[in-house]
Amino acid sequence: MKRPWQGQVEPPLLKTVPRHDPHNPLCPGATRANGEVNPYYDGTFLFDNDFPALQPDAPSPGPSDHPLFKAEAARGVCKVMCFHPWSDVTLPLMSVPEIRTVVDAWASVTEELGAQYPWVQIFENKGAMMGCSNPHPHCQVWASSFLPDIAQREERSQRAYQSQHGEPLLMEYGHQELLRRERLVLTSEHWLVLVPFWAVWPFQTLLLPRRHVRRLPELTPAERDDLACIMKKLLTKYDNLFETSFPYSMGWHGAPTGSEAGANWDHWQLHAHYYPPLLRSATIRKFMVGYEMLAQAQRDLTPEQAAERLRMLPEVHYCLGQK
Amino acid sequence: MKRPWQGQVEPPLLKTVPRHDPHNPLCPGATRANGEVNPYYDGTFLFDNDFPALQPDAPSPGPSDHPLFKAEAARGVCKVMCFHPWSDVTLPLMSVPEIRTVVDAWASVTEELGAQYPWVQIFENKGAMMGCSNPHPHCQVWASSFLPDIAQREERSQRAYQSQHGEPLLMEYGHQELLRRERLVLTSEHWLVLVPFWAVWPFQTLLLPRRHVRRLPELTPAERDDLACIMKKLLTKYDNLFETSFPYSMGWHGAPTGSEAGANWDHWQLHAHYYPPLLRSATIRKFMVGYEMLAQAQRDLTPEQAAERLRMLPEVHYCLGQK
Ligand SMILES: O=P(O)(O)O[C@H]1O[C@H](CO)[C@@H](O)[C@H](O)[C@H]1O
Ligand SMILES: O=P(O)(O)O[C@H]1O[C@H](CO)[C@@H](O)[C@H](O)[C@H]1O
Repeated sequence: MKRPWQGQVEPPLLKTVPRHDPHNPLCPGATRANGEVNPYYDGTFLFDNDFPALQPDAPSPGPSDHPLFKAEAARGVCKVMCFHPWSDVTLPLMSVPEIRTVVDAWASVTEELGAQYPWVQIFENKGAMMGCSNPHPHCQVWASSFLPDIAQREERSQRAYQSQHGEPLLMEYGHQELLRRERLVLTSEHWLVLVPFWAVWPFQTLLLPRRHVRRLPELTPAERDDLACIMKKLLTKYDNLFETSFPYSMGWHGAPTGSEAGANWDHWQLHAHYYPPLLRSATIRKFMVGYEMLAQAQRDLTPEQAAERLRMLPEVHYCLGQK
Repeated sequence: MKRPWQGQVEPPLLKTVPRHDPHNPLCPGATRANGEVNPYYDGTFLFDNDFPALQPDAPSPGPSDHPLFKAEAARGVCKVMCFHPWSDVTLPLMSVPEIRTVVDAWASVTEELGAQYPWVQIFENKGAMMGCSNPHPHCQVWASSFLPDIAQREERSQRAYQSQHGEPLLMEYGHQELLRRERLVLTSEHWLVLVPFWAVWPFQTLLLPRRHVRRLPELTPAERDDLACIMKKLLTKYDNLFETSFPYSMGWHGAPTGSEAGANWDHWQLHAHYYPPLLRSATIRKFMVGYEMLAQAQRDLTPEQAAERLRMLPEVHYCLGQK
């Protein structure tokens, strides 16, 4: 971190996103690529991605003729969820009741697609730096016929820990972080936010319920309200860190769904990961390249340093504070 | 790939890198951050990184008090290797004998640092898009007291394959790709370049010796000359793909070194990985975000499509061809 930075600097944010743009396919009343017209929605709005990476009827690659050449069909659906009818807001600028509506929509889509698919991945790419090509506040939902790699890894680790220690890994982990306090960012009645011990992105966080909850639909109304509230605080801190609309990829991980949903998944604890790319300022990012791609992640600051910086930041958004 | 791109576009390349800049710490005769003055080198030049991520005397984190909180000391050294005295060249614009000098320097540094350290990671971050902050042609060498994560994974896979099938995984893999041909990019007397079956970056390639070679220093003079030649061809194709100085991270993986170097590492096959970020053009990259960070890599084009595009490209650099 002491090295003077002479590398790439990201372009500054284009600040002027119009509240409504009839040519933006995510806006109420706009016509999408497939010719459908969006309703004049006033809360969240869920629709099929017009350019899906997963399709329900993807062909099977056929049998493998060699142990080094194995492929399997990947089937599924891709949806887009708008968070709000306006293009010029983001989650931290929305009200707690508006965010609560998003939480409910996440729970419903998990239930709906989870009836058929074993994995429902909700994720948000925020900001151009994270490959997001539309400023309208939205996330994506990709449901798949298989457990993706990272889901499989979390399944293995949580299962192994439970069988060795008799309790869910992330319940014990949250408990320990509450005792140690050095990596905590925010706590509330029902939730914890911390920079995990294993963090590799500079300001990576983990959002955990305090109660043992396996999936989003299990959250009680009180836990959902509290989640909306703690998300608003976390994302406000993120925006305040470099006084910018803070980019990140985030997503939810919970117990697998689909036909095996009734099996014993007690080793799972619901959680969200936030992976922000920024390191030094609003325009200087962490590059996960070279050594990271070929050998191992290396940290530019410690999780304890990151947690402390985030903890100290105000919970009032820099755009909303009094001048 | 059919989706119209409205997302981030990278800034165009600054074309005018001066051949010599006395303020650039990588240039011959320049003064570095630690006060040392570079020699007027005329081939390659190896020196200690002034901002090392690994240090030989890093303190030990002390014993762990909980199975979820384990840390170990990471010790090592970080070096920088300049490829050429001029700042305005890149490997594909260097002559084959000049590239051969780089190959020899890679072999020497592996031997030198491998005497003490179990893993010597040679890697090149090329281009601002890959976090490279200095245009002078160079790579880095990080030697560590431990096998990094990805080295461990390659060790496990290659060991398991050898014990199950009685031959090195990558020898059989290269053999199969030579038979199938659909993912080959370049072949020469001693080397293969292919887009691997498992590629996730759009134009990712794997560079493999045909003979069973465990580490860089084992390469014969003929293999080294041929390597210089095939690297020049591959990197020329890369530059020609979008008519730009093609960014990438690349690195070498070979059998572990250090005190265990004498053990049986016959399951290892030396290879280099190239991971380029570009997808659609010189300024539109692949974003490994969202679903990729939280679930699984998804491919925007198939390895067979990528290999075919690379195969068709000329082996004369677009900057050197006749006008
Ligand atoms: O060592 P450099 O060039 O300062 O830094 C670059 O390479 C490192 C090793 O791949 C990365 O950790 C950094 O994020 C990147 O900017
Ligand atoms: O789906 P989008 O917004 O077109 O695309 C974005 O998210 C995808 C899923 O994380 C990534 O694979 C793409 O690289 C990224 O640009």
